[in-house]
Amino acid sequence: MAARRYTLGELVRLLGGELRGDPAVEVARVATLQGAGPDAISFFHRADYAAELQATAAAAVIVGPPHEAATAKPRIVTDNPYLYFARAAALLHPAEAVAPGVAASAIVDATARIDPAASIGPHAVVGPHAAVGAGTVIGAGCVLGSHVQVGAQTLLYARVVLYERTVLGSRCIVHSGAVIGSDGFGFAPDGGRWAKIPQIGAVVIGDDVELGANVTIDRGAIDDTVIEDGVKIDNQVQVAHNCRIGAHTVVAGCAGIAGSTVIGKHCIIGGAANLAGHITIADGTVVAGGTSITRSIRQADTYVGVFPFDRRKEWLRNSAHLRHLDDLVRRIAALERAGAPRAGN
Amino acid sequence: MAARRYTLGELVRLLGGELRGDPAVEVARVATLQGAGPDAISFFHRADYAAELQATAAAAVIVGPPHEAATAKPRIVTDNPYLYFARAAALLHPAEAVAPGVAASAIVDATARIDPAASIGPHAVVGPHAAVGAGTVIGAGCVLGSHVQVGAQTLLYARVVLYERTVLGSRCIVHSGAVIGSDGFGFAPDGGRWAKIPQIGAVVIGDDVELGANVTIDRGAIDDTVIEDGVKIDNQVQVAHNCRIGAHTVVAGCAGIAGSTVIGKHCIIGGAANLAGHITIADGTVVAGGTSITRSIRQADTYVGVFPFDRRKEWLRNSAHLRHLDDLVRRIAALERAGAPRAGN
Amino acid sequence: MAARRYTLGELVRLLGGELRGDPAVEVARVATLQGAGPDAISFFHRADYAAELQATAAAAVIVGPPHEAATAKPRIVTDNPYLYFARAAALLHPAEAVAPGVAASAIVDATARIDPAASIGPHAVVGPHAAVGAGTVIGAGCVLGSHVQVGAQTLLYARVVLYERTVLGSRCIVHSGAVIGSDGFGFAPDGGRWAKIPQIGAVVIGDDVELGANVTIDRGAIDDTVIEDGVKIDNQVQVAHNCRIGAHTVVAGCAGIAGSTVIGKHCIIGGAANLAGHITIADGTVVAGGTSITRSIRQADTYVGVFPFDRRKEWLRNSAHLRHLDDLVRRIAALERAGAPRAGN
Repeated sequence: MAARRYTLGELVRLLGGELRGDPAVEVARVATLQGAGPDAISFFHRADYAAELQATAAAAVIVGPPHEAATAKPRIVTDNPYLYFARAAALLHPAEAVAPGVAASAIVDATARIDPAASIGPHAVVGPHAAVGAGTVIGAGCVLGSHVQVGAQTLLYARVVLYERTVLGSRCIVHSGAVIGSDGFGFAPDGGRWAKIPQIGAVVIGDDVELGANVTIDRGAIDDTVIEDGVKIDNQVQVAHNCRIGAHTVVAGCAGIAGSTVIGKHCIIGGAANLAGHITIADGTVVAGGTSITRSIRQADTYVGVFPFDRRKEWLRNSAHLRHLDDLVRRIAALERAGAPRAGN
Repeated sequence: MAARRYTLGELVRLLGGELRGDPAVEVARVATLQGAGPDAISFFHRADYAAELQATAAAAVIVGPPHEAATAKPRIVTDNPYLYFARAAALLHPAEAVAPGVAASAIVDATARIDPAASIGPHAVVGPHAAVGAGTVIGAGCVLGSHVQVGAQTLLYARVVLYERTVLGSRCIVHSGAVIGSDGFGFAPDGGRWAKIPQIGAVVIGDDVELGANVTIDRGAIDDTVIEDGVKIDNQVQVAHNCRIGAHTVVAGCAGIAGSTVIGKHCIIGGAANLAGHITIADGTVVAGGTSITRSIRQADTYVGVFPFDRRKEWLRNSAHLRHLDDLVRRIAALERAGAPRAGN
Repeated sequence: MAARRYTLGELVRLLGGELRGDPAVEVARVATLQGAGPDAISFFHRADYAAELQATAAAAVIVGPPHEAATAKPRIVTDNPYLYFARAAALLHPAEAVAPGVAASAIVDATARIDPAASIGPHAVVGPHAAVGAGTVIGAGCVLGSHVQVGAQTLLYARVVLYERTVLGSRCIVHSGAVIGSDGFGFAPDGGRWAKIPQIGAVVIGDDVELGANVTIDRGAIDDTVIEDGVKIDNQVQVAHNCRIGAHTVVAGCAGIAGSTVIGKHCIIGGAANLAGHITIADGTVVAGGTSITRSIRQADTYVGVFPFDRRKEWLRNSAHLRHLDDLVRRIAALERAGAPRAGN
C-alpha cells in the first residue's frame, strides 16, 4: 500500500532523470503498463510492449532515451528505466515500519546485546552473547543461537534460525524458514556405519545479502562457509559446508551447491541447477537452470546441460539410443573405414 | 486412530455403492489388503493384486463392477473403488478435533478479526487487520502478517508463515514450514550490484487447495501470484512471483516453477520437474518427474526430458559422445553424400 | 570453541592409536593442515596434501601407517585417520551442554511424559500423550504432536515439527525446519477434482539417524514411512509417503524420493538426485548427484544419468540432434545395408 503520493517533480528531484511533462502530476503507486490506473507510474523498456504503452491508463511512464518520444504522456527519461522503477517503487511502497524494542513474549538472554534501535519480535529467542545491531528487525519466532552477530538495518522475517556463531552483515534480508548454520553433512565410514564429523566452523555472511524463504546454509566443517557482500539467494537454495559464494552473485530458486565449492563473483546460477562439491566457478559465469555442473569452470561463459524435453512418445523413441551411442559411433567409424569419405573431405 | 466402528450397512447408506454380503459386519479402520486385520475394510482395483485379495484378512473389500465376483467376502461394489476408499478412510479416521478459541500464548493483534469458531494455536502470531474464518485452525507457531485473509474450514499445521496481505481460501490445508508471500526474486542491475525491486503484489490462493510441508510461494512483483481452486502442491515445491497455477492442477514434490509462468488447469507436474519463467503450459499437460521445461507447451500431452541413467562405466562411455553429436551428424551426412542411399530409399 | 586442552597422551588413552612423539604435548582444537595454529591437531590421509603437511603449524598430526614417517612432528598413527579425527573433534569440541528441564515458555500437555533428564526449549509445544526420553533436547519453538515418541539422547534443533504419532529413536539429530509426519500426497480423481486420501500411517525413524535442515518426511498413507537405524539425510531432502530407507544409507542434499520407494541398506544417494515412486534400490547402490532413477535397481553399482554440460553455443548445436536420434540411427542402418561393413567385421 502506498504511503503517500509523490509529484513527478518530487520524483525527479529525489531520483534524478529528466521530466517531459507536467511536474505537478501526482502518482500514488507503481504498476505494470497493463495494470496501471490513473494514479500509477509505470515503465517501458522493451519495444515489444509498445501496444501496452499506447493503451496504458498510467499517469506517467519511465522510459529510456530511445523511447523518449514513444508516448505523449508525462514521462521520466533515464538511462536505466528498470532500475529507476525499482527506486520509485521503494519510495512509493515503503516497507511497514517496525517499532524498535523487544516484544514481551520474546526470550532474550541477559548476556545478549540488543541495540536500542533494534526490534525483536514476538516469541523470538535470542541466545547468550548474541548481538543485534541498530535498526535491525528480528521477526516473530526467529531463533538466534549463542554468539550470533547480526549487523545494522538487517531484516529477518518470521521464523528464521541462525545457529550459534553465525555472522550476518548489515542491510541484509532473510526470508522466513531460512536456516543458517546447521551442521554440514560430514561423516567418516566406520565399519559399515557413519561416524559424525563434528562441524565446528561457522557461517559468515556479508552486507547487502538477501536469502530467500527456506534457504539452508550449512556451517563449515572446520573453517567457515562464506557468503560475500551483495549475494542474492532465492528460495529453497541449499549451500553446503565450506562453500564460498563471491560478491554480487545471484543464485535462483531450488539450486543446490555441494560442499567446499567456490563460486566466483558476479555469477548467475539458474534455478534448480546443482553444482558438485570441491569445484571452482570462474567470476562472471552463467549456469542455466536445471544444469548439473560436475567439474570446475575456469572460463566465464554461459553453460547449459539440460536434456531437451519432448512428447513422451518421441522421447522414448530417441532417448533409447543414448544407451548405445558408443556402438553407434563405432558403426559410423566402420562405415568410414569401409571407404566412404569423412565429412569435410 | 479410528473414531468409532461402522457397519457396512452404514457405510453404504452414507457413501453409496452396492453391498454384497452381511450389512451388520463392522469395520473400524481402512487397511491395505496385506496389512488388513479382521476389523478393517480394504479395496481392490488392480488385477495384479489378485493374490493379496485372496489372502487378505480384511472384514470387507471395496471393488469395482469388473471384480464384483473376485472375492466371496462382504464387499461394496462401486464405480471408483479408490475414491470410495478415500471417503471411507475419512469417515473411519477423522482428523483430531480442535477446540475453537485463541490459545493464551498466541499473540493476536487487537484489530484482527478471528471468527469465534476458529482456533488459534499456542505461540501463533496474528498481525493487524488479519481475518480468520469459521472453523479454521491456525496451528502452533504460525505467523500471519498484517491484512492476511484466511477463509473458513481451513487448516494450517504448525509453523506456517503467511506474509502480509496473503489471501487463502476455504477448506484449504497448509502443511508445516510452508512460507507464502515471501518476496519474489527481483533485482535490477546497478553497476555491478543488484538493486532490489520492491515486491508489492500478493499471493492469492483459492478454495480447496493443499500445500505441502516447506512449500514456498512468492508474492507478485506488482500484480499477484495466483493459485486457483483445487490445486494440490506437494512438499518443497517452489512457486516464484507472478505465477498462476490453474484449477485442479497437481504439482509433485520438489518441483520448481520460475517467475511469471502460467500453468493451465488439470495439469500434472511431476516431482523435481522445473519450469522456466515466462512460459505457458496448456490445460491438461503432464510433465514427467525430473524434466526441465524450457519453453511454452501449447498442446496437452505427456512431456519428458530425463537423461536415461546407466551404470557409471556405460554412462561415461556413451555420454562422452554427446559433446560431439553435431560432428557425428556431419559424418553421417558425408557418408550419405558419398553415395550410400538414405534410409527409406 | 574448545572445552579444554588434551595432551596427546590423553587422546591416545581415550581414542587408541599409537603415539610417535611427546605425550605431554597439548592440543586445544582440531584444524586443517593449512588452518592449524600451534594449539591444534590436524590429520593427513591423502598424499596430495604432502606440501600442506610439511608447512603446517599444527602441534600434532593424525596419520595412517603408510604415512607414519611423513612428518617429524608428534603424530598419532591409526588405521583410519579421518575417523580418528572425527573422534578427536568430538572430544575437543563438545556440543554446548543444555540443562535439563522444561522452559517456562514451553507449552507441554499435562498427559505428555517428559523424562526429568530431558530439556524442552523456549516456546516449544508438546502435545497430548507425547513422550520424550532422557537426555533428549527439544529445541526452541519445536512442535511435537500428540502421541509423538522421541527416544533418549536425541537432539532436535530449533523449530522442528513432528506431526502426531511420529516415532523417533535415540541418539538422533534433527536440524531446524525439518517437518516429519506431514500428509503424503495422495488424491483420488473425482470428476475433474481431487479427493484427498486421508493419510493415516505414521513415520517411524530408528536410532542414530541424522536429518538435515528443512528435510520433509511424509507419513504413510495407510502403513508407515520407515527410516532405519543409522540413516543420514542431508538438508532439503524430501521423502514421500510409504518409503523405506535402509540402515546406514546416506542421502545428500536436495534429493527427492517419491512414494512407496524402498532404498536398501548402505546406499549413497547423491545430491539433487530424484527417485521415482514404487521402485526398489538394491543394498549398496550408489546414485550420482543430479540423476533421475526411473526404475528399480536390482544390482549394486554406481549409476549416473547426468546430461554433460557445455558452453551454451555447443550445447545448442549438439543437443538439437537428440530430438532426431532415432532418424540418425535409421540413416546409419541404411548406410550399412547399402553395403558398408558393420563395425567389428
